[in-house]
Amino acid sequence: MPSEFFERNKELLDKATEAIRTREYWSAFAEVPSGKIYGETANDDGKKAFEARLHRPFAVDQPGTRGEVGSERSPFGMDLGVTYSKPDLDELLHRVASASEKWRATGPEAWVGVCLETLVRLNKRSFEIAYAVMHTSGQAFMMAFQAGGPHAQDRGLEAVAYAWSAMQHVPQSAMWEKPQGKSEPLKMMKRYRIVPRGTALVIGCCTFPTWNSYPGFFASLATGNAVVVKPHPGAILPLAITVEVAREVLKEAGFDPNVVTLVAHENGDEVAQTLALQPEIKIIDFTGSPQNGVWLEEHAKQAQVFTEKAGVNQIIIDSTNDFKGMVRNIAFSLSLYSGQMCTAPQNIYVPKSGIDTAEGHLSFDQVAQSIGEGVRKLLGDPARAVEILGAIQNDNIVQRVEKARSLGNVIVDSQQIDHPQFPEARVQTPLLLSTDAADESKFMHELFGPIAFVVRTEDTAQSIDIARRGAIEHGALTMSVYSNNEDVLREVENAAAEAGVALSSNLTDGVYVNQSAAYSDFHGTGSNPAANASLTDTAFVASRFRVAQSRAHA
Amino acid sequence: MPSEFFERNKELLDKATEAIRTREYWSAFAEVPSGKIYGETANDDGKKAFEARLHRPFAVDQPGTRGEVGSERSPFGMDLGVTYSKPDLDELLHRVASASEKWRATGPEAWVGVCLETLVRLNKRSFEIAYAVMHTSGQAFMMAFQAGGPHAQDRGLEAVAYAWSAMQHVPQSAMWEKPQGKSEPLKMMKRYRIVPRGTALVIGCCTFPTWNSYPGFFASLATGNAVVVKPHPGAILPLAITVEVAREVLKEAGFDPNVVTLVAHENGDEVAQTLALQPEIKIIDFTGSPQNGVWLEEHAKQAQVFTEKAGVNQIIIDSTNDFKGMVRNIAFSLSLYSGQMCTAPQNIYVPKSGIDTAEGHLSFDQVAQSIGEGVRKLLGDPARAVEILGAIQNDNIVQRVEKARSLGNVIVDSQQIDHPQFPEARVQTPLLLSTDAADESKFMHELFGPIAFVVRTEDTAQSIDIARRGAIEHGALTMSVYSNNEDVLREVENAAAEAGVALSSNLTDGVYVNQSAAYSDFHGTGSNPAANASLTDTAFVASRFRVAQSRAHA
Repeated sequence: MPSEFFERNKELLDKATEAIRTREYWSAFAEVPSGKIYGETANDDGKKAFEARLHRPFAVDQPGTRGEVGSERSPFGMDLGVTYSKPDLDELLHRVASASEKWRATGPEAWVGVCLETLVRLNKRSFEIAYAVMHTSGQAFMMAFQAGGPHAQDRGLEAVAYAWSAMQHVPQSAMWEKPQGKSEPLKMMKRYRIVPRGTALVIGCCTFPTWNSYPGFFASLATGNAVVVKPHPGAILPLAITVEVAREVLKEAGFDPNVVTLVAHENGDEVAQTLALQPEIKIIDFTGSPQNGVWLEEHAKQAQVFTEKAGVNQIIIDSTNDFKGMVRNIAFSLSLYSGQMCTAPQNIYVPKSGIDTAEGHLSFDQVAQSIGEGVRKLLGDPARAVEILGAIQNDNIVQRVEKARSLGNVIVDSQQIDHPQFPEARVQTPLLLSTDAADESKFMHELFGPIAFVVRTEDTAQSIDIARRGAIEHGALTMSVYSNNEDVLREVENAAAEAGVALSSNLTDGVYVNQSAAYSDFHGTGSNPAANASLTDTAFVASRFRVAQSRAHA
Repeated sequence: MPSEFFERNKELLDKATEAIRTREYWSAFAEVPSGKIYGETANDDGKKAFEARLHRPFAVDQPGTRGEVGSERSPFGMDLGVTYSKPDLDELLHRVASASEKWRATGPEAWVGVCLETLVRLNKRSFEIAYAVMHTSGQAFMMAFQAGGPHAQDRGLEAVAYAWSAMQHVPQSAMWEKPQGKSEPLKMMKRYRIVPRGTALVIGCCTFPTWNSYPGFFASLATGNAVVVKPHPGAILPLAITVEVAREVLKEAGFDPNVVTLVAHENGDEVAQTLALQPEIKIIDFTGSPQNGVWLEEHAKQAQVFTEKAGVNQIIIDSTNDFKGMVRNIAFSLSLYSGQMCTAPQNIYVPKSGIDTAEGHLSFDQVAQSIGEGVRKLLGDPARAVEILGAIQNDNIVQRVEKARSLGNVIVDSQQIDHPQFPEARVQTPLLLSTDAADESKFMHELFGPIAFVVRTEDTAQSIDIARRGAIEHGALTMSVYSNNEDVLREVENAAAEAGVALSSNLTDGVYVNQSAAYSDFHGTGSNPAANASLTDTAFVASRFRVAQSRAHA
């Protein structure tokens, strides 16, 4: 049965493995939430499945549970009312260990087979998961479907392909035959076994509960580790469904489903820290705040810790041949999901003397005002605006916007928008401020949410210098540059490489700096404080397993 | 010029890259110290070159030096009298950083080209390095030549092949073309750049100064990092020659030679700790004591730390069809370089009821006495014995043997042997003790040097249990089993895999448990306390570099 899942989905694996080598466009899972692709009733079915989850206990058959937890509230304005079994951690880890025995011993094809089948089944549940992501993260439906469903699944498959590729580098056996001059050669038969590192812990976040968790989840599972999933208390449901699907596949494949388990918990308790320090936990994948991420890096010494934290993403504007395209592109990047993306730009550097464009020279104020106008235009129609902005995930973000108003001169103020469908949703347009490079202390730290600065610099050289230093010191996942000058573009490319940040140059068309495509775009590099790893490269998977060898005379 | 070195040595790289995929026998560098291979005058030339180094300052043209250090003494009984420039660390790291700029920017072919050329030139210096290794480590000449020369070079080349292979997994560019239904596809041109992690530090040991340092040295250099080499104060010369050769190649390739630097220092000072905590140091490769290794793992948080520490290597004897072959093999393993190998066996488990052999049943005492007799026979002729034993590296080992006598019943006592050629050499045969499984506290910690125990167990099941637990709790690099029973062999193989230790089964012929062959045998797994990494696997190289990407509309 395990190998049946592998054989059934082998083509998917082969294509993904090819895609990560070429990094050309490829996708396994359709991103369009279309009835033609997913079945005419898929949306209705998914919505019903989601609604059937509400206001009742989530049925997960995990052992050793002690009471219930769960107080998720949709940013669109309703309590989900889903409760989850609260596991006893000692009992849980004990059961995970015993479930692991057979799982660890089975080998790469079975591990990867279970992962592939889980991904394919998750894809069929994309609408249900989309509603779960929407009503926990606050993403608008389209984004919740794409980022929470097929894009997350693609990121998961990408991790499986990397894991497979790394494990395939090790042969199962070798005949070693060493010449001995005129004597018979020495012959040794050698066997190499992939040994999973231990139990893995995945710590999810509340804005991209699936997209940010699937790479670590599938990288660990595909390399034979058991996985304990600890969702953010504000976004449990999408990962609870994920765990449910994985457990179902494990069971069908003849394994103890406790290879994959869920640890739901209340906000503010010590469950994450307690779990992270257990000696059994040998791998941790974390997405969340810098302080929690750094805490894990410093304290969970028994584990290999992969973190994605936060940073300050920056745009350098030097000149452009397509000013309107640039403004449209930036306005969309600032507005999408109200800037609640770890890849959303925050600081936009513009020289005080202004910039050259195809329409002539534009002053700093003209550039700043045009971006503000672009945001206003993009979000002018509330019905359209809410589908771009989604809802604000939590009150901290609302308060952060309030406080941020004093950090510069307001170009466009953040405004609340009434959601036509969800009257209680907190929908908020971006706050755009202008400020001066000298006020670096005000703009050079992450202000997660719909807050952005247009920063007046001496010149492009200063813009580049600030951006490079900002990324090195405060971390960054994305950087963006607009310039017609090849020297400037090369200089920014070097600065971005030095700072370990992904660069997008002159984006004016339908690709946005906040978006990264599986199999092609690396998300994070591991070489600045925003993340100590990349989704996904070889380093992200290679230390999740070890190789044990045995040899004997042949 | 950099690419000339790459092209010139490309075939070597291709063959090594193929070898690590098949893990069949291959070697780039001849292990026989023969005039036919290395040139008829190679031995004389190498000896003269070594002697010309003695009793004078080692000429290294590093900047920022402040005075001289160096007090190496040959375990064969003479002061080397070589002094080395003592670098000012701040000045050194400053110069390394400036040397790194061009080096980091140049790319994989140049990095790997410099590594390959350095290895080829080191191979030509194998005799000189052999004498340097012999007169620092105390290895007998043949071993010093093989392990210090060609085998170390093969381990270095293996690391280069892994690094090349991991970097090759990332394409330099990709055209990403995403279909947009009936509209024109979105087209992005993407570039991917390998970004070295930072400056690497290699901390050498005094027993295998080159063999244990070359993997980390070449893995870091091949991925574009600058490398600071800090040898053990007792074994500086072999690495000083290595650094000299690498600097010469760097210069010829048009790079600042300060990409590779030497930090010689005195025993007992704080240089290693100070260096290891510098923010510039992003990678550390360490071989040495558990306490120093654990200190690095816990304190050098700014760096990716790879350690090889120590462990307790064990042999399980259950039964054998070739008792004489087994005894000969074990006796040699215990004697080779007086057990001063991290792979040398220490504990030999034999059931109290004895074992079945082709010659009939043998009691515990008969097995223990036979192994003792095997050691005596092997080392009966002093002229031959010294070529197997080499000399004791330092006085701590002599004292450890003295103290160890009380830990069990002496089967064969350790004896001093007069070296026919070096009257002042400290040559010592192994101490073999017998003891009981109940006295675990006496034998279950590393007693580095010529000390071994034959341990009386209840039965083979207990032998396996102790061995597995010992490796998990105290670390181990090798495990060995003798049995005719397939069930026992399978059980030991599972135990060894669980404990993350390399297993050798029924070694009776000319392969010894302490030997591991480049391209085929993994040295260490990273999954027990003996080492947190493996020489060499993908995990050993993959996090030494990052990938920075840039993209633009095509």
